[in-house]
Amino acid sequence: MPAVTLAELNAANKGGFAAMLGDIYEHAPWVAERAWARRPFENVSALHEAMMATVRAEPVEERLALINGHPDLAGKAAVADTMTRDSKAEQASAGLDRLSAEEFAHFHELNNAYRQKFAFPFIICVRRHSKDSILRQFERRLHDDATSELETALTEIFRITALRLDARIETTQRLKVHGHLSTHILDTHRGKPGGGVSLELFELSRSADPRLIVSEITNDDGRTSEPLIAGRPLPIGRYELRFHMGAYFARLGLPLADPPFLELIPIQFAIAEPEGHYHVPLLVTPWSYTTYRGS
Amino acid sequence: MPAVTLAELNAANKGGFAAMLGDIYEHAPWVAERAWARRPFENVSALHEAMMATVRAEPVEERLALINGHPDLAGKAAVADTMTRDSKAEQASAGLDRLSAEEFAHFHELNNAYRQKFAFPFIICVRRHSKDSILRQFERRLHDDATSELETALTEIFRITALRLDARIETTQRLKVHGHLSTHILDTHRGKPGGGVSLELFELSRSADPRLIVSEITNDDGRTSEPLIAGRPLPIGRYELRFHMGAYFARLGLPLADPPFLELIPIQFAIAEPEGHYHVPLLVTPWSYTTYRGS
Amino acid sequence: MPAVTLAELNAANKGGFAAMLGDIYEHAPWVAERAWARRPFENVSALHEAMMATVRAEPVEERLALINGHPDLAGKAAVADTMTRDSKAEQASAGLDRLSAEEFAHFHELNNAYRQKFAFPFIICVRRHSKDSILRQFERRLHDDATSELETALTEIFRITALRLDARIETTQRLKVHGHLSTHILDTHRGKPGGGVSLELFELSRSADPRLIVSEITNDDGRTSEPLIAGRPLPIGRYELRFHMGAYFARLGLPLADPPFLELIPIQFAIAEPEGHYHVPLLVTPWSYTTYRGS
Amino acid sequence: MPAVTLAELNAANKGGFAAMLGDIYEHAPWVAERAWARRPFENVSALHEAMMATVRAEPVEERLALINGHPDLAGKAAVADTMTRDSKAEQASAGLDRLSAEEFAHFHELNNAYRQKFAFPFIICVRRHSKDSILRQFERRLHDDATSELETALTEIFRITALRLDARIETTQRLKVHGHLSTHILDTHRGKPGGGVSLELFELSRSADPRLIVSEITNDDGRTSEPLIAGRPLPIGRYELRFHMGAYFARLGLPLADPPFLELIPIQFAIAEPEGHYHVPLLVTPWSYTTYRGS
Repeated sequence: MPAVTLAELNAANKGGFAAMLGDIYEHAPWVAERAWARRPFENVSALHEAMMATVRAEPVEERLALINGHPDLAGKAAVADTMTRDSKAEQASAGLDRLSAEEFAHFHELNNAYRQKFAFPFIICVRRHSKDSILRQFERRLHDDATSELETALTEIFRITALRLDARIETTQRLKVHGHLSTHILDTHRGKPGGGVSLELFELSRSADPRLIVSEITNDDGRTSEPLIAGRPLPIGRYELRFHMGAYFARLGLPLADPPFLELIPIQFAIAEPEGHYHVPLLVTPWSYTTYRGS
Repeated sequence: MPAVTLAELNAANKGGFAAMLGDIYEHAPWVAERAWARRPFENVSALHEAMMATVRAEPVEERLALINGHPDLAGKAAVADTMTRDSKAEQASAGLDRLSAEEFAHFHELNNAYRQKFAFPFIICVRRHSKDSILRQFERRLHDDATSELETALTEIFRITALRLDARIETTQRLKVHGHLSTHILDTHRGKPGGGVSLELFELSRSADPRLIVSEITNDDGRTSEPLIAGRPLPIGRYELRFHMGAYFARLGLPLADPPFLELIPIQFAIAEPEGHYHVPLLVTPWSYTTYRGS
Repeated sequence: MPAVTLAELNAANKGGFAAMLGDIYEHAPWVAERAWARRPFENVSALHEAMMATVRAEPVEERLALINGHPDLAGKAAVADTMTRDSKAEQASAGLDRLSAEEFAHFHELNNAYRQKFAFPFIICVRRHSKDSILRQFERRLHDDATSELETALTEIFRITALRLDARIETTQRLKVHGHLSTHILDTHRGKPGGGVSLELFELSRSADPRLIVSEITNDDGRTSEPLIAGRPLPIGRYELRFHMGAYFARLGLPLADPPFLELIPIQFAIAEPEGHYHVPLLVTPWSYTTYRGS
Repeated sequence: MPAVTLAELNAANKGGFAAMLGDIYEHAPWVAERAWARRPFENVSALHEAMMATVRAEPVEERLALINGHPDLAGKAAVADTMTRDSKAEQASAGLDRLSAEEFAHFHELNNAYRQKFAFPFIICVRRHSKDSILRQFERRLHDDATSELETALTEIFRITALRLDARIETTQRLKVHGHLSTHILDTHRGKPGGGVSLELFELSRSADPRLIVSEITNDDGRTSEPLIAGRPLPIGRYELRFHMGAYFARLGLPLADPPFLELIPIQFAIAEPEGHYHVPLLVTPWSYTTYRGS
């Protein structure tokens, strides 16, 4: 779908409005249609609130129908290729489109158990999670009661639709749905930024090898040209930053041990707030280092 | 062999002396026999010096013969089980008794290339090295010239015999042939030692999985009951310490992120001085940590 | 008084025992006399317990009399020079023998207010405090009620007598009445201890200039030859360590800024546990440093 | 003088140009007059270069005359109030207008010695220095030879005029004549910025008490609303940052020692590059802290 502006949305008639936003709620164009009556919208946040209020105003049967319009995670819809384009992209973002046979079977089992208990599919805003985190949520939420799961399902739908609105609408006043992960190398041996250092960010998983997210070389300011992750929620999960300091200190021509005391510096950390700002810097000499959650 | 004292050695006749120390130099009991004439020995260091002087006093042919008395590293002698008991234990210490077929072939190739160039076997004090470090030395020393390799071979033999003397002789004035590796956890969140933390030390290798060296739980003083490595040379190589801080901070009942920002803290470092003192502590809060080479 | 051993004490008759320990409790030789009946004493701790039990067994009038046998802090007894030798030395340890006229007047006022409220003198184990800390305790305890102050006065008397017993009796099983303050410089620029560094420890005061406690130069291990304070309780109070790092880094011939970024490094900290172990190290490069409460 | 734009300067006739820039060089309007012929100027840097080239093109007598047009530092001109307004403001910036009688006498002596040796006044761009740093430069430069001092005097004049041009001309392409000093508090106990912390920056002096430069309270991001120093050169000298962490940690309601281990944290550092960016952050828990030169 092409991006639209708030001005276009506010000026549209009901049909035009629904044509532009009818797919924000999965298989539920009525949300856009009824929210239209609440226009004009001062900003995306007001629009998002209006659409959520529309859903909350419905009786429980309608809300359940909305929930039931969502596909299973890594489910048959994925295999049969009958998901909406948005759902497909979202599930791919967490790697749910490249599961091993074993993982696929595990998801299938969890989906069935969940549906059997609650009579609706497990819904989670997958862009805010890594695969491990989705599984952990799945296992936790299976133990909840039906009332709170209904609430949780709606909360997750609203997170999904907030991200879809953010992607659809051109505006300077964006929703706070994105996080930010960055790093910085400070060479405290020389009192200068550590430039020209290779580094990688991996996503860690209990059941699979680390997955490379980004590979970068620091600039003269000891930073990467772009944040490690930005412009999207930070997937909840565990990560490892690897700093290749050996080559850096060798280039400086310092008197080093052989082999050098520090070469590859791995830093493992977890992201728990998808919309948070995480700065994970490295203060380093050939003999010491410090890291911390900065901001 | 049973341990002996300097008093016993100084009191022994030539035959008794050779019976006690004849196997210190590989297949060369004459070193002990001739060194006997230099008694009495004030301490082990003087005895070691006397034995080295005995070797150095010999013409080059004798020295070459001494060198040639040593087995190949991971060579046929190992397969045929014809090495001296000391040599066998030494090669096992660096894992040369559990090589893969590929590694065995690589050593074989290096042994042949070395013998072809220098006409004597490659000698290295394996207790001072990891497998990776031995291979690196092998590749480096293949490029040396014959004169300096002859010197290096003797130096390595003297390191081997120093360790054998240290193991054989009971004394309070021991040779400085051992290193020391320790750690310490300081919880700077509470200003107290970090006790009850599980940690592991792994040896890293370019070609194989990390090998567990020791697994420990810190005591109330944030230290391990024993040093991580002591009473032997520290094998030159790369290592990883893994601190399981997640469980520690969870036990303290602190308000943590979910998942916690820090859980497993891996620290990779290299040992370059087998006789050195390495202290690799961890200063840690749930949000930050520092490590350094201490002493 | 000369030091005595537990064996001598246990073997003494009542008169001899009282001669050796009659002055432990200020102007109250009866405590030693009655405690004599509780002999033999396995260790100093048992002896201390016995003397405390003797006091606690007395009716309140006796305990009040004991308390009233103590001199005012920095009071008339000091001026008239009628205090016991121990009391004199103790008050001097916290600088109460060199008060300014203003401070003397302030103590006088507090003593009067305290006596007026409680009808006994303010007692505190001054060896566990700095002058500032004594004043703070004075001001706090003036607001307590009489019952708890009576308890507090006895607790402080028992701390005073524990220190007196520790000084009087020769033993290997000493009372835990001493603290320990040490430092350590780790040069993380070079990965080595920072030796040859001048440092000073000052006691800080709200109303006076910092008072030099000790001035030292670190040895090759980056430590001082003796702990900064040991063999006595650490006076509760605020302190400043000053590390003269400028000269150290200049001697190493490193390329430094002019003037160097770091020269004098001051670290202010407080001691709150007189019997505690405080280690206040410095990890330092020409461009960074870290300190922490170690153990 | 009012600010002017490059467009106005480039459009001006000789008289107008000199009216606008005649006072940039002290008592030497001829520099502006002759530089006028080199217009148009693409940016301030080109104008500055043109004026410097004008001076350098003159014979040594003219250059000496220019140098001699400058007042002594803290000299009679100051007392007689006959300096240009710019010179007055510049000397005040380093505190040369509030010297003690002793300091005044010392400057007088140095001025005389310098004039006697070189036959021209000591010139230094005082905005780039603290009082201590000026004295140190004075003492050093007295030992230089006449040729290099003539060069140094011109270099300093060009630094003075660069700052005057920067203040006079409105432009977006400013000269790089300003530095930047900032701080940042990271509470690594909580993994959050340290907001609401009082801090002060003092200039240190060998001969006087610390002089307060700025007093601030950190915002929610742990930073000060404005840099500690910006929009001017950073005076070369020694400084102390004082962070009042005791009140901060007390507000958080943490279990602290009494008195708390850390209360006031002083950090002493030197600025050596007036046009540099200095970031001096504090990573802190109630039991530890780290600082470093960041960027």
